[in-house]
Amino acid sequence: MADKPSRGLADVVAASTALSDIDGQAGRLFYRGYDIHQLAGVATFEEIAYLLQRGTAPAPAELDSYRAELAAGRALGKLVSSALAEVAAAQGPMEALRSLVSLASAEDPDKDSNEAAANAAKAARLTAQQPTLVAAYHAARQGRDCPPPDPGLGLAANFLLQLRGSAPAERDAEILDACLVLHADHTMNASTFAARVCAATLSDMHSAVVAALGTLKGPLHGGANEQVMRGLEVLRAAAGGDPVTEVGPVIRDRLGAGQKVMGFGHRVYKTEDPRATHLRQMSAELAAVSGDDTYYRMSRQLEETVFAEKGLYPNVDFYAATVYHYLGIPTDLFTPVFSVSRMAGWTAHIMEQHADNRLIRPESEYLGERDLTWQPLSAR
Amino acid sequence: MADKPSRGLADVVAASTALSDIDGQAGRLFYRGYDIHQLAGVATFEEIAYLLQRGTAPAPAELDSYRAELAAGRALGKLVSSALAEVAAAQGPMEALRSLVSLASAEDPDKDSNEAAANAAKAARLTAQQPTLVAAYHAARQGRDCPPPDPGLGLAANFLLQLRGSAPAERDAEILDACLVLHADHTMNASTFAARVCAATLSDMHSAVVAALGTLKGPLHGGANEQVMRGLEVLRAAAGGDPVTEVGPVIRDRLGAGQKVMGFGHRVYKTEDPRATHLRQMSAELAAVSGDDTYYRMSRQLEETVFAEKGLYPNVDFYAATVYHYLGIPTDLFTPVFSVSRMAGWTAHIMEQHADNRLIRPESEYLGERDLTWQPLSAR
Repeated sequence: MADKPSRGLADVVAASTALSDIDGQAGRLFYRGYDIHQLAGVATFEEIAYLLQRGTAPAPAELDSYRAELAAGRALGKLVSSALAEVAAAQGPMEALRSLVSLASAEDPDKDSNEAAANAAKAARLTAQQPTLVAAYHAARQGRDCPPPDPGLGLAANFLLQLRGSAPAERDAEILDACLVLHADHTMNASTFAARVCAATLSDMHSAVVAALGTLKGPLHGGANEQVMRGLEVLRAAAGGDPVTEVGPVIRDRLGAGQKVMGFGHRVYKTEDPRATHLRQMSAELAAVSGDDTYYRMSRQLEETVFAEKGLYPNVDFYAATVYHYLGIPTDLFTPVFSVSRMAGWTAHIMEQHADNRLIRPESEYLGERDLTWQPLSAR
Repeated sequence: MADKPSRGLADVVAASTALSDIDGQAGRLFYRGYDIHQLAGVATFEEIAYLLQRGTAPAPAELDSYRAELAAGRALGKLVSSALAEVAAAQGPMEALRSLVSLASAEDPDKDSNEAAANAAKAARLTAQQPTLVAAYHAARQGRDCPPPDPGLGLAANFLLQLRGSAPAERDAEILDACLVLHADHTMNASTFAARVCAATLSDMHSAVVAALGTLKGPLHGGANEQVMRGLEVLRAAAGGDPVTEVGPVIRDRLGAGQKVMGFGHRVYKTEDPRATHLRQMSAELAAVSGDDTYYRMSRQLEETVFAEKGLYPNVDFYAATVYHYLGIPTDLFTPVFSVSRMAGWTAHIMEQHADNRLIRPESEYLGERDLTWQPLSAR
């Protein structure tokens, strides 16, 4: 057998990619060679999805055509529509998305092909469909109709329209758009890696995306942004006086007791996550206009306390929580919103895996008993 | 960044396990320390599922209790039953299983817990439910009722009853039972690894099993047994004379042209896959009583040709194909039958991952462009 395992594959290079790169020491993230700081608040999510899925920054005509492709892909298929009400009544948001995306393959005309053109078309459809699925799920569980998609709106603005039931302020849509850009890809994170392990058996894009959705659901991955917000909510509800001044002592006690605080630290970044820098600014801006900046100020206090006590920096999930909160997104839809963005990266990684494939089949180290003798049932 | 990647993680130890072990040089496979040659045709699938999921060979009372737990877990839930007809009409078998298992989490009383007792209960329910799902799917697409499960039958016999619509011969059930034992676990195969990557985010067992199902679907993994049978069907249909004597020259031509023949070779075994030894015998036995042993004799000829030309041994998929064929299982359900068995291993691996967890988050090697400057849309 081979060497001892690297627990969690930390520091093991599992795949090559041309999609994104992280410089963990310097705290830099690149999408196809572009520093995220050049993109955040500048490029639209559609441009970034195109960049990831199709390889280059789109020229104006290419972007127009891709936007039209996305707008055409927003409608939900028959099997999904038929199951939606019962699924929304019976399953939580990430369970439901896992089920609905699995059902959605039924009507995809390219479902049986892993060819580059088929995959590119599926990637666009899955990216277009995901916000509609989240919004339709939310409307269904509230027992109201989901507004039809508006083909004149970009993906972020249309998502807020369908989610809230009314057209969003332009700045809200811009901020959500920037959030989607920041979450679109992040090298070999767990959900992306699960998608690549699945795709490497030459299974299809829907199967790989469904694997990624189930993986993102975990509280150590996509579920972390929701945990951050729930933590803030609990702290605020439990505060005897000003929750902002009470954060410091409470968190110091928790850290002293060896408890984990969600939204801090990252296996790859050794300094501030560059996405957190942008999300902190967005949270501040939204808090200022919201009329209640308590959660933002609590977050700042929490950040200072964790840094002072543990030297840990906030990660992408920490300020995403309050940004989504101020955008009026229900807390249990934070991870689904993450999936709306990461769909761009997942699908691009699946295409990259299929384009130069080898089965991902590692070894394991055996730690159990050896050379036992099977006894007949009567002798046990 | 770290070292160069090992393509496909070949020879990289990704995890520790006490569930199964392979000696690839000697061609040996062990489940919790018991050589598969001691178990095949001796232990029942229920004993092996218990061994994998609960850690020891069950004593008689433990086995009785586990069998009762499985029998109680065979019924399908409301959400699954409600979606079944439409799913069966719209999705292929592995797509449908991915969807139906995802839907099935809705009614699992332990769906929100990863605790050991909750996971053990879910593992038994998922193992019990999978054959019913396959049979119910098949009945639904044929437009007939699926017989209710018979709590007096073991898992393999009940599966054949529900799948065929009539009680199987005892020997058919014994042979399918032995097949299920042979496929129950196999260290860090791609679907099991996908399940562990998912579970390592502390996502739930259903999510991890759904990831595994989508991964098993791929033709480089579970899909291979179906490909083997389709290959035999095509060879037989194309034969001008005796298909058995024509196999040799046709396969030699294909191999000479650099084409791959499905069902041969394995990344880990350097000699005969020990499972193939048993499956070859089963195929011979079933062929002899079937009245038409053509596919078996074609398989033997194919095996000899591939060994003579390439030195490759048949793997688990090669003789599983004809065994399932002679058992009257439709070819497009071969991979679903694989999932009925592997459910025991997947669920055991998920429990093992949750019991001593670390996020599985590898590194990647970046191969793309660097330090590009993002141009405004108007400048592209």
